[in-house]
Amino acid sequence: MKYQRLALIGCGLMGGSFALALRQAGLVDHVMGFSASEGTRTKALKLGVIDSACGSAAEAVQGADLVLVAVPVRATEATLRAIDPALSPTALVMDVGSTKGDVVAAARVAMPMRLANFVPAHPIAGKEVAGIEHADAGLYQDRQLILTPLPENPAERVLQAAQVWQALGSRVLELSPEAHDASFAAVSHLPHLTAFALVNAVARQPHGAQHLSMAGPGFRDFSRIAASDPNVWRDILLANRDEVLHQSALMREALHEFEQAMRAGDAERLQALVDEASQTRSRWRLGGADSDV
Amino acid sequence: MKYQRLALIGCGLMGGSFALALRQAGLVDHVMGFSASEGTRTKALKLGVIDSACGSAAEAVQGADLVLVAVPVRATEATLRAIDPALSPTALVMDVGSTKGDVVAAARVAMPMRLANFVPAHPIAGKEVAGIEHADAGLYQDRQLILTPLPENPAERVLQAAQVWQALGSRVLELSPEAHDASFAAVSHLPHLTAFALVNAVARQPHGAQHLSMAGPGFRDFSRIAASDPNVWRDILLANRDEVLHQSALMREALHEFEQAMRAGDAERLQALVDEASQTRSRWRLGGADSDV
Repeated sequence: MKYQRLALIGCGLMGGSFALALRQAGLVDHVMGFSASEGTRTKALKLGVIDSACGSAAEAVQGADLVLVAVPVRATEATLRAIDPALSPTALVMDVGSTKGDVVAAARVAMPMRLANFVPAHPIAGKEVAGIEHADAGLYQDRQLILTPLPENPAERVLQAAQVWQALGSRVLELSPEAHDASFAAVSHLPHLTAFALVNAVARQPHGAQHLSMAGPGFRDFSRIAASDPNVWRDILLANRDEVLHQSALMREALHEFEQAMRAGDAERLQALVDEASQTRSRWRLGGADSDV
Repeated sequence: MKYQRLALIGCGLMGGSFALALRQAGLVDHVMGFSASEGTRTKALKLGVIDSACGSAAEAVQGADLVLVAVPVRATEATLRAIDPALSPTALVMDVGSTKGDVVAAARVAMPMRLANFVPAHPIAGKEVAGIEHADAGLYQDRQLILTPLPENPAERVLQAAQVWQALGSRVLELSPEAHDASFAAVSHLPHLTAFALVNAVARQPHGAQHLSMAGPGFRDFSRIAASDPNVWRDILLANRDEVLHQSALMREALHEFEQAMRAGDAERLQALVDEASQTRSRWRLGGADSDV
């Protein structure tokens, strides 16, 4: 399952790391890269992430047997539309978007005749820094990778997609796009939204800077995700808006419960609520899902 | 500034770590320990954290030149009341509570004649595991330590308190109890409250367990503090209730702003909000306060 030509559309952290990892695993001969920014294309070439820089996405996918679309989520539809006419009939096409319902909808509109080739993917990996200069061949090692196959994907196509990520060290799990978006609204998008809101709430106060100077390791870890890429997260929060708003409402309810117990001075109730969270979190383990493909 | 006898009231993670650190620094000859639980007293003895186990707090402080009260915040008043008659007139007494307004109020009621001896302290250190078995001589190394001196404390007494913590590797900062409680409501109590609420909100959903199995490193770090000790946090959230409720209201407002931008599909506004948080968090550094005593 070696590939002759990878087309990398979008030369950022995620795409760059994929190209480096694939090359390091000895699974690709040549990487064609396209980025909307000429500066990024040049950087990707210099860093050895891509072998050739292309002037358009369509040019990059010509003759490619593997295509990775690693662009901000809301650019997915335009990108798929641009590459559709130039795609090889046998190419495997994947994305790396953090939301899947919108990506599937985009694919249905943009490449209706090539849906069988497109297997939506979401690697649960990242960094709080963006850009090709942070690309890392080990980014997907020991991480979870979610595939949300389409009814149009033949089983061999899904297997092929899974094998690519497994070769990079990822644990592959299949979900429906709906189940994916519901789960990630809860355990990724809501925590990000909450961390963004909390950082803004604290920093905007009259003594916000002084407060922040007192913050310790608890705040450091809690708020780490608040430093995430604003472009990426604007898109995610909009793309999965309904699920995120639903989760945010549940979160408000849970917060309200704590506030009520505090206002009432109800120590027993408050302890029960903290205990519930503490036990849940103590039992939780990273990568608990062992249902690998 | 070597101490002959440390009285440790409360043999948990914080107190045990203090005793171990003081001994490792060669600053104490003998440690008298009291814990309300006989099992904990025995464990503290076996682990070598204390040299003698005492049957009461009053017994432990007899002849002690240094006293550390390391009990859950709401037990502070009863503890100070119990040790007051047995205190040496020259002893330095400190606590390790995460809230300070309530501790100062408790001291005023419980030991009005010995207020000069009591310097309230809050080490910004901890672990997500409680108990003497996790005590660690390095817990206070390179951590911030807040003193909230009383008007009754002579300057030498405050200096003495600062020197103890500096000898354990802490960076010492002085604040008023009010400023302390306002800052920690914002950067510690609110993040804990938020993490507790989010974990409960996610786990209670019909597919909560499945959602949690998908969670990645972002969730891991964000929710780490949700595993904190329920007894300790029940007390903190009640002791600093007004400030925490104020912070929670600010947090709700900030969250509401994000929700409004999402509902309106206002990508520009949403990006500005995420950008604000991302820039604030990217600039923030742990231990940014260099205003050491």
